[in-house]
Amino acid sequence: MIKTPEQYKESLRKMRPNIYKFGELIEDVTTHPATKRCVTSHAKAFEAAQDPKYQDLVTVESKLTGEKVMRWLTVMETPEDVIKNCNFKRLMYNLTGTCTGALCVGWNCLQSMWAATYEIDKNEGTDYHKRLKKWLEYAQQNAITVAGALTDPKGDRTLPPSKQKDPDLYLHIVEERDDGIVVRGAKVMIAGVAAANEIFVMPTTSLREEDKDYAVSFVVPRDAEGITIVEARHPDDARELEGNGYELPAAGTGITQAWILFEDVFIPKERVFMCGEWKYALKAIIYFTSAYRALIGSCVAGQGDIMVGSAVLIARANGLSEKVFREQLIKMIINNETTYGMGIAAATLGEKHPSGAWIPNALLANVNKVHVATLPYETKVLCEEIAGGIGETGCMPSWKDLKNTKYGKLLEKYLTAAAPGEARARIAYLIQWLTCGAGIPGCMHGGGSPAAAKLMIRATAKWDQYIEQAAKLAGIKKEDIPEKR
Amino acid sequence: MIKTPEQYKESLRKMRPNIYKFGELIEDVTTHPATKRCVTSHAKAFEAAQDPKYQDLVTVESKLTGEKVMRWLTVMETPEDVIKNCNFKRLMYNLTGTCTGALCVGWNCLQSMWAATYEIDKNEGTDYHKRLKKWLEYAQQNAITVAGALTDPKGDRTLPPSKQKDPDLYLHIVEERDDGIVVRGAKVMIAGVAAANEIFVMPTTSLREEDKDYAVSFVVPRDAEGITIVEARHPDDARELEGNGYELPAAGTGITQAWILFEDVFIPKERVFMCGEWKYALKAIIYFTSAYRALIGSCVAGQGDIMVGSAVLIARANGLSEKVFREQLIKMIINNETTYGMGIAAATLGEKHPSGAWIPNALLANVNKVHVATLPYETKVLCEEIAGGIGETGCMPSWKDLKNTKYGKLLEKYLTAAAPGEARARIAYLIQWLTCGAGIPGCMHGGGSPAAAKLMIRATAKWDQYIEQAAKLAGIKKEDIPEKR
Amino acid sequence: MIKTPEQYKESLRKMRPNIYKFGELIEDVTTHPATKRCVTSHAKAFEAAQDPKYQDLVTVESKLTGEKVMRWLTVMETPEDVIKNCNFKRLMYNLTGTCTGALCVGWNCLQSMWAATYEIDKNEGTDYHKRLKKWLEYAQQNAITVAGALTDPKGDRTLPPSKQKDPDLYLHIVEERDDGIVVRGAKVMIAGVAAANEIFVMPTTSLREEDKDYAVSFVVPRDAEGITIVEARHPDDARELEGNGYELPAAGTGITQAWILFEDVFIPKERVFMCGEWKYALKAIIYFTSAYRALIGSCVAGQGDIMVGSAVLIARANGLSEKVFREQLIKMIINNETTYGMGIAAATLGEKHPSGAWIPNALLANVNKVHVATLPYETKVLCEEIAGGIGETGCMPSWKDLKNTKYGKLLEKYLTAAAPGEARARIAYLIQWLTCGAGIPGCMHGGGSPAAAKLMIRATAKWDQYIEQAAKLAGIKKEDIPEKR
Amino acid sequence: MIKTPEQYKESLRKMRPNIYKFGELIEDVTTHPATKRCVTSHAKAFEAAQDPKYQDLVTVESKLTGEKVMRWLTVMETPEDVIKNCNFKRLMYNLTGTCTGALCVGWNCLQSMWAATYEIDKNEGTDYHKRLKKWLEYAQQNAITVAGALTDPKGDRTLPPSKQKDPDLYLHIVEERDDGIVVRGAKVMIAGVAAANEIFVMPTTSLREEDKDYAVSFVVPRDAEGITIVEARHPDDARELEGNGYELPAAGTGITQAWILFEDVFIPKERVFMCGEWKYALKAIIYFTSAYRALIGSCVAGQGDIMVGSAVLIARANGLSEKVFREQLIKMIINNETTYGMGIAAATLGEKHPSGAWIPNALLANVNKVHVATLPYETKVLCEEIAGGIGETGCMPSWKDLKNTKYGKLLEKYLTAAAPGEARARIAYLIQWLTCGAGIPGCMHGGGSPAAAKLMIRATAKWDQYIEQAAKLAGIKKEDIPEKR
Repeated sequence: MIKTPEQYKESLRKMRPNIYKFGELIEDVTTHPATKRCVTSHAKAFEAAQDPKYQDLVTVESKLTGEKVMRWLTVMETPEDVIKNCNFKRLMYNLTGTCTGALCVGWNCLQSMWAATYEIDKNEGTDYHKRLKKWLEYAQQNAITVAGALTDPKGDRTLPPSKQKDPDLYLHIVEERDDGIVVRGAKVMIAGVAAANEIFVMPTTSLREEDKDYAVSFVVPRDAEGITIVEARHPDDARELEGNGYELPAAGTGITQAWILFEDVFIPKERVFMCGEWKYALKAIIYFTSAYRALIGSCVAGQGDIMVGSAVLIARANGLSEKVFREQLIKMIINNETTYGMGIAAATLGEKHPSGAWIPNALLANVNKVHVATLPYETKVLCEEIAGGIGETGCMPSWKDLKNTKYGKLLEKYLTAAAPGEARARIAYLIQWLTCGAGIPGCMHGGGSPAAAKLMIRATAKWDQYIEQAAKLAGIKKEDIPEKR
Repeated sequence: MIKTPEQYKESLRKMRPNIYKFGELIEDVTTHPATKRCVTSHAKAFEAAQDPKYQDLVTVESKLTGEKVMRWLTVMETPEDVIKNCNFKRLMYNLTGTCTGALCVGWNCLQSMWAATYEIDKNEGTDYHKRLKKWLEYAQQNAITVAGALTDPKGDRTLPPSKQKDPDLYLHIVEERDDGIVVRGAKVMIAGVAAANEIFVMPTTSLREEDKDYAVSFVVPRDAEGITIVEARHPDDARELEGNGYELPAAGTGITQAWILFEDVFIPKERVFMCGEWKYALKAIIYFTSAYRALIGSCVAGQGDIMVGSAVLIARANGLSEKVFREQLIKMIINNETTYGMGIAAATLGEKHPSGAWIPNALLANVNKVHVATLPYETKVLCEEIAGGIGETGCMPSWKDLKNTKYGKLLEKYLTAAAPGEARARIAYLIQWLTCGAGIPGCMHGGGSPAAAKLMIRATAKWDQYIEQAAKLAGIKKEDIPEKR
Repeated sequence: MIKTPEQYKESLRKMRPNIYKFGELIEDVTTHPATKRCVTSHAKAFEAAQDPKYQDLVTVESKLTGEKVMRWLTVMETPEDVIKNCNFKRLMYNLTGTCTGALCVGWNCLQSMWAATYEIDKNEGTDYHKRLKKWLEYAQQNAITVAGALTDPKGDRTLPPSKQKDPDLYLHIVEERDDGIVVRGAKVMIAGVAAANEIFVMPTTSLREEDKDYAVSFVVPRDAEGITIVEARHPDDARELEGNGYELPAAGTGITQAWILFEDVFIPKERVFMCGEWKYALKAIIYFTSAYRALIGSCVAGQGDIMVGSAVLIARANGLSEKVFREQLIKMIINNETTYGMGIAAATLGEKHPSGAWIPNALLANVNKVHVATLPYETKVLCEEIAGGIGETGCMPSWKDLKNTKYGKLLEKYLTAAAPGEARARIAYLIQWLTCGAGIPGCMHGGGSPAAAKLMIRATAKWDQYIEQAAKLAGIKKEDIPEKR
Repeated sequence: MIKTPEQYKESLRKMRPNIYKFGELIEDVTTHPATKRCVTSHAKAFEAAQDPKYQDLVTVESKLTGEKVMRWLTVMETPEDVIKNCNFKRLMYNLTGTCTGALCVGWNCLQSMWAATYEIDKNEGTDYHKRLKKWLEYAQQNAITVAGALTDPKGDRTLPPSKQKDPDLYLHIVEERDDGIVVRGAKVMIAGVAAANEIFVMPTTSLREEDKDYAVSFVVPRDAEGITIVEARHPDDARELEGNGYELPAAGTGITQAWILFEDVFIPKERVFMCGEWKYALKAIIYFTSAYRALIGSCVAGQGDIMVGSAVLIARANGLSEKVFREQLIKMIINNETTYGMGIAAATLGEKHPSGAWIPNALLANVNKVHVATLPYETKVLCEEIAGGIGETGCMPSWKDLKNTKYGKLLEKYLTAAAPGEARARIAYLIQWLTCGAGIPGCMHGGGSPAAAKLMIRATAKWDQYIEQAAKLAGIKKEDIPEKR
């Protein structure tokens, strides 16, 4: 099924209100200023699905039913499928300026659990894969949005889940029933929950036998009984409540990140995809990160595109030629294309999993994650450099001041350069929003920390081959090389 | 005179309210949430003046009167004086976490105009230097704070002041009277105005004869007739109005940046230090930038110190050893000490001006400005990397949510790691404030853009010497080297 | 045809000696110390062709004849073909530690002229493409090696070929005959000529009508009448003449770069692939650079692999654990995989040319060229950092000193660490050879300068799209944006 | 005493030949091609001492005798003295293009042992300080050059001196006599020994009681009985033997680095400055590194100046305007001034030692060492980038080929651009010599490794202060912060 934006919003409005911000319940996520921007961002995908220019990218024929479905509700089976995901993510950032988490993290959970459930079933005689396939059909038929939730609160980082003082610091099974399970705990800093119909839950770390109860994966409606959601603060998010003029993107887009509290939530059996099989937690995570860390490079490239565009606009608005900033603009493009290209490479050199899923190359994906944790920051700084003083923080009068009858006209007069004052201010505010405001997604730790990525690089690099070839060239005998210490 | 913090605040309370934010007049800058944090920051200097640990740095004996005065109201006459300024600035950032503009920019204006007025008087037979000296005595005797204002709105960047469509886009003299001058225009993005008693105005760019009316320097009380001040927005500044819990530094500090509108403001003769002497505008600016770009490295080092401290705290709060982040922490320190050290070097290799002022080395100062526009950004990113997901933007529940009776306890439970939840959140919020929130000063364009600094590097580098020595080593004859193209 | 290494060397020995170094004619390139290392490097590809482990990469079935042929003598028609080329280049660097130019540049010339001749023929009614195909059959049947030669001496860089004082500063046609053409000029700094059977010549720059005579492409036996070749100096190349012990790689590999002088050389018609069609020069170059700048990333990755291996070996030889250098080693791997991955991405996102050739994506290829001009240098510095003082230049006794009867034993004693002295010295010398010795290929300007790559990035980036999307997000009207200046 | 260059060379000629290279004894270091370039470099200091332009920098009045002496034979007692040393080193690099080790390392040994002997005498009742003073008078009166030797072979890096399998892997005392001591071992990779009259020996690492015999410092004539010196290889050093044309700097300068073998060398008592006082080894090293790591920034700045000059020359020779490379040239200057400036800062913020010696600031000096291990490499790469293909390795014909009667004229013709071919080649060769040839000094490990510098940064940074201030700003209570793990 292909929903229209209006149908999508309608589906959100039907849900039980269980999202809070600033201590207050949000009755309608599609209109409340704290969440509506996030919904608008996601709605742009449904809009694009109607647009001949984009529909091939946003929709695809289902292998399960032969019907046209939203692309994020399908398993990626070829490098081309992964590349389409890259291009979809870059497009979404182009259209929204920011992250649409409920279109991509859930997709990635589906992809990783597709492979993991296949293996569990094969080895353990379970039927998770069938359950997942069934849910996927349902999801396709309803064109839903799905947030993905991995990150637990984690407590003391040096201790495993079962050794924490408080057992709830990782989400866990508290009861197994015939018809399902009951879970408790939290998933934190989850993107796009306010715009999601459902939440796909997976473990966040490798587990040992004593952590068995923490080996749990399932999908649950966002408004299920027992779930309370608190939206986190963003820089500048108060502007969303104020709702004033030019201080936020005119396109009405935005992002949210939520703390999801699970207070003994019941999950029916057919929606459970892992339940105690601790050995597969690490595998599922590796499938997740191999795809996610390849793909996330397209997100930051897509936001980087907007920064390039904004930088050219502000330079012109300031009365300068963009030629003055040629080196900087090209460096920004190099950064964008590098994180995008490394994702393409990881996709291309991936491997077919017996389940049919295509798993991108882990080494290249993790190298990309390190780039994603560094290059976009440089792009932001370059964008601020080009913008001049006005793009820097703390330098723009508020909309209320601009519209003040006493001195507003004077402010506008003094904002005027080669572009009219208000237009120039709009671009400057967009730059602030992109570089240190509410439009910033989590490049550093989204999809895991660069430190975690480096561990994976170490684990997947071909050390023996490097050493052997070097020793051959140098003419060193094996016995002359001291053992690894 | 050495004021107490309370006397200082009292002096601000006595002034005419002429500062606005969000369209509203601020009656008392010392209590209004939009400005009180900036006042608190500046008050910390008066506090330090009472503290035996710091008073040698913050106060000094006046050469004019022999009395103890606030150090920022004296001319720097030796490298040691400049280094004390460096140390003072680093201390203020340590104490406040951010910028105290009304203690430093005015100081620098005094320093540059001290030299410039000396030259104008000598060549043009004026008496500006005497006027300035007189004002300085008054300033010392009243222990005032002085914002410095250089940046004009500038309109179309490719046109000089007199060629702009609107003549007011650079501040200019509209009338010369026997007893003074009348000025019109604006100075924009000026730090610490809300905490200042007076404003020191200087030109922002080199001028030609047709720009004569733009060659103007003076000092004026912040609340003079005709002056209207509008405070600019900062990321997160709405939190200042909300005034909630842990979302802003507990120390109560903060920063402001203002748009100052001059609507035909009268400046009495004895407060005017340049009036049409266009030839000296560039010189005054070079004196200003040589000092300012040396000194600003201490600011960012001082804020960097806080980032190092915060990074260690959050690592411990997360349950990790700071050893894990040794490379990152050392890189942060290297960045801090580099911008600090380059300022010390510029001070040391400076030159004595005939007026008595010590002018830091222009080449080293401008090299430092380029570092200031790059290294602190790297420091911020490293701080976020160490912080983990919680330090990243969009990841912390608000204070109101933490205190919500329904689910606040759950949030606190899940925030808990090796430190209690609230303490950990406080550190995370401090990091956000430092790295993408209201505590960010303008490293990129403060004291001028890196592009401007590079022009100065090009102008002051010893090209001929480099080329001559290389040609000698290579054994190239002069006639073999093509001319510069 | 698949040659053995011995057959390959035999084919070189049969050629007319026309290569000089240090003023002397080299009678046999396979044994002369100045060239034999380069020949050995290339011979390793023929060796690999016999090795079951590598033969699928090194050989392939010809589309022309169905016979097994050396892979570098085929047109790449799919992304997979380009990726195989990437992998082949990385393998060759792994096996030799350096560049095997006569296996790759000629290949790339074939690829670009395959597309260019197709277009010329189509538009101009010529038969170049047929000629090229015929030559290719011959090349395949003889399993030859082919150097590619683009770079002209270029004289004054600001003038086009026809405006140079000396008309020979770019290679040009001096006579057109019925049976062929006569060319004069030079191609300089050409890799692997000493190991090549033939040389493939192409223009180096875009041309205008007045440069018609410079629009020339052909293939010629290396030893054709009128061709004189002078091998350039390399750092440390004197060691090749000395031929002493451990100062050069034990594997016997090496590299050469030649100045090829064409003194009125006759090229028979059937070997000419462009003759005056100046309009196609730029196109041919863009096809060349799009492939070459994608592929060159694999070269530097392959050499980088050896640096990683050497770095681990020297750390162990010094008695240190490689864990100490984890950050550095991982950074080296990141650099390697980035230049490799970007090439894979450029291949994947390329386009099919009507001639059948696959043309990699120009934007990604040129981004990669910028990385190739920077990242390997960082890798080298990291390798030296890990090596300790002994890896640094100027720190190792010569082989002759080590073997000196008076004090050689003492040197060996003092070279001993966790590995025996001589073994440790071998690794240190390999590192020197890789990082500042005769093993360095031209990362900076090979395949064109980074400046040229940046021009291509500027030309291929989607500026309008970036600007349009940013304007939409900001809510800027078209008429508010000043025109490009 | 102030010697002339000729007197200096005469003093070297009088010494016993005990230096070898390539297995052969060097009879006269002033004329042998392997060493004469190093001697010429050092002679330039004696030349400068006669030059009114430089003599104030190169010579100074002795505090011991009131006589004019060579500056490198005096103790630095003020920041100004240290800054003069910085300027002297930068000048020497400007004049020679490379390192003059026998003018600076010995100087630094004197400085550190000046302070260390003062302390030993004070605490242990010895008379080392008096001995050192006496030697200094002698040194001044003879205007000698002094190499400094710290680096031992070190064997297995994880073991202290006394635990090595071979006791000689660190230099040690084998016998104590009434009239002196006998030492055995080696000092390796020591700069400028061939140009030195004497060698100043110090320990290279901190020592424990069991390492007592390794706590030894003394000064010894380079040609003392029992000392054998073997010069190490440099990239391209074979060119020195060939002595051909333009392949080495026309100025005749160069560098050497030696392995010094001590086979039971007798050191008379009055030349011994430490003999078993293991506790003071670390202190002496810290004094050494605090000065050396501050000063070494001037060396690399001085060589960087030459690279800037060469880059401009080659751009012009290629027919390009240096404007094209403005960003790169300014970056090179920024790198130069940063390592220079950080040394100035360390000098300025140093401390007076009770012995009178001025000890630069350890934190800033060690930060500078990290810069010295990174920035010059970037400068080199930028220089190669500007040079174009011709500056890259492996791209220039040899002098013998240029002068070949058959084809030399053709080579010269094709080398011609905006400058004549030979002149252009000279610049290109100078660039190669500076960036990957025999002119490279050891930026990475000279004065210790960057890893060692980082340890010192960690040891000297004010962690407690950073943490305390951050905690205050955040409002964290002490008990909420977990202990350091």
